[in-house]
Amino acid sequence: MAETNLQILLRRRPQGAPVPEDFEIVETPVPEPQPGEVLVRAQYLSLDPYMRGRMSDAKSYSAPVALGAVMAGQTAGTVIASKAPGFAPGDTVLGGSGWQRFSCVQPGSLFKIAPDDAPLSASLGVLGMPGLTAWVGLEDIGRPKSGETMVVSAASGAVGQVVGQIGRIRGCKVIGIAGGEAKCRFVTEVLGFDACIDHRGDVAAELDRLCPEGIDVYWENVGGAVQRAVFPRLRDFARMVMCGMIAEYNDTTPAPGPNLMSAVRKRLRIQGFIVSDTGWPRYPQFRQEMLGWMQAGRMTWREDVVEGLRNAPTAFIGLLKGENFGKLVVKID
Amino acid sequence: MAETNLQILLRRRPQGAPVPEDFEIVETPVPEPQPGEVLVRAQYLSLDPYMRGRMSDAKSYSAPVALGAVMAGQTAGTVIASKAPGFAPGDTVLGGSGWQRFSCVQPGSLFKIAPDDAPLSASLGVLGMPGLTAWVGLEDIGRPKSGETMVVSAASGAVGQVVGQIGRIRGCKVIGIAGGEAKCRFVTEVLGFDACIDHRGDVAAELDRLCPEGIDVYWENVGGAVQRAVFPRLRDFARMVMCGMIAEYNDTTPAPGPNLMSAVRKRLRIQGFIVSDTGWPRYPQFRQEMLGWMQAGRMTWREDVVEGLRNAPTAFIGLLKGENFGKLVVKID
Repeated sequence: MAETNLQILLRRRPQGAPVPEDFEIVETPVPEPQPGEVLVRAQYLSLDPYMRGRMSDAKSYSAPVALGAVMAGQTAGTVIASKAPGFAPGDTVLGGSGWQRFSCVQPGSLFKIAPDDAPLSASLGVLGMPGLTAWVGLEDIGRPKSGETMVVSAASGAVGQVVGQIGRIRGCKVIGIAGGEAKCRFVTEVLGFDACIDHRGDVAAELDRLCPEGIDVYWENVGGAVQRAVFPRLRDFARMVMCGMIAEYNDTTPAPGPNLMSAVRKRLRIQGFIVSDTGWPRYPQFRQEMLGWMQAGRMTWREDVVEGLRNAPTAFIGLLKGENFGKLVVKID
Repeated sequence: MAETNLQILLRRRPQGAPVPEDFEIVETPVPEPQPGEVLVRAQYLSLDPYMRGRMSDAKSYSAPVALGAVMAGQTAGTVIASKAPGFAPGDTVLGGSGWQRFSCVQPGSLFKIAPDDAPLSASLGVLGMPGLTAWVGLEDIGRPKSGETMVVSAASGAVGQVVGQIGRIRGCKVIGIAGGEAKCRFVTEVLGFDACIDHRGDVAAELDRLCPEGIDVYWENVGGAVQRAVFPRLRDFARMVMCGMIAEYNDTTPAPGPNLMSAVRKRLRIQGFIVSDTGWPRYPQFRQEMLGWMQAGRMTWREDVVEGLRNAPTAFIGLLKGENFGKLVVKID
């Protein structure tokens, strides 16, 4: 039986929250690799909040996905055929192949990984872009020091779970913020954070109780009401690592933010970053440190695995509503 | 004729804008230095926006001036008598003697300066705390690079005039923002900024015209409407040096600030600092570099000299309204 490719295209730009009709699922022939290319069969696709930005044509740090083009995304898979030096059928690779089963890619955009280091899907999460995001943001901006207090929003998510565990390894008191009792229990009991606040409750009061001396490092994944509760509780010299504001991604009009006078008064550092700016050249160093933590039992993670590429649009729509529990990946086939 | 001391005390904490009745002017005996102390006669008192914060008992980076105490402030003056090693009558010194003619101080809080390097009052401005503030904020946060675009608010003020001139020395295109035509003309014609925008006009439109590719470094002295015009025009990787927000110092309720999603998208760095945190140990290095620029004709400055310590409260009230033109100092006697 001849295999076919399955692709998910961006049909139109969402207005507010994406809906299934913004996507189009098509079957196409499996492409032939040209000289210098590698044919990859993806086994896992990573779904991440940043993809909402790529669906929009608002000015941003990377070009939008064109209408009618395959949605962009990281995959983990296997080389099927290679017309490029250094890659052979059977190699396990990470790359940005997008929301599709087969793709022909330039080898410069692929990382060859040892398949036995960790489960393959982990290379899209704790060992992949989200883990690297956590590591880079803390290295460059958060700079947690032993004895400090760290607050992590979206604490059970792909990035948040790694951020908080690194915070614990660095000797911080780490408070997570997550949606619902089950996620909060996971954050404390499995990830080992010191405490976790349900964002559906009174976040400000809980922060006052858990961080009576204030917050030294705030990892911002969500924005909105959580940001409004955290910001006034930052301590002198606090760092606010601006990784994302998922609660506002579907907003068509941005809400006002905090008055910045406290940035002077408290000498705050509020800084955004995008992992792709400086992260990938440091991937080998990151992967080595992360594998060390995993093998030492100091780093755990949770995945939310969706079966079947056809379910990617619905899963992504749910991700923006916080319906996933752990790093969201799609198992292809 | 026996001399007397003249002191200006904080009588009560201002509600909103300070008024003359918030201060009290008293004559007292000249104090006697105790062993280990130095008696200083101040010739110039620096008036600076940060003093508004010291009048308030809101939580801030330094303790408020106590009610009934002498207002805090930097002075330049002469040693009259010394019971401390290393200081002798006639020495020229900088120190934080406050709003008074005579004071007995610990030598640890005094800098002895060579009186002939520059006019004495310059050591309260371009060579003093405001100049050091400009230098430290650009070294640590702004990091201007040749070819970048810098915008400086309160450009004709004590800090702003130094910031912009350093920006020019570093090879930036420098746009000032100041209040009124006379100040704007001074900023371009005397200080040598590339352009200056009157904040009473359409700041946003002028920024679009003068910085069509956006802003790499924004030196924030004022907040308010100027901040609202600048913030959306920051470029990717812009640095926003949070030095002050004088337009909001008298506000009793802080206005909302910018939505911070662009901090992620553009990888902004928004960071506050207070010169006293790390500045003074670097004062000799700063003073040497600044004197070099002054002697090379690359650094100029303007002072607004008020005669007589009794006029300090009125001058300070005017400073918060932007009524001064250049670095505001009081000539004592």
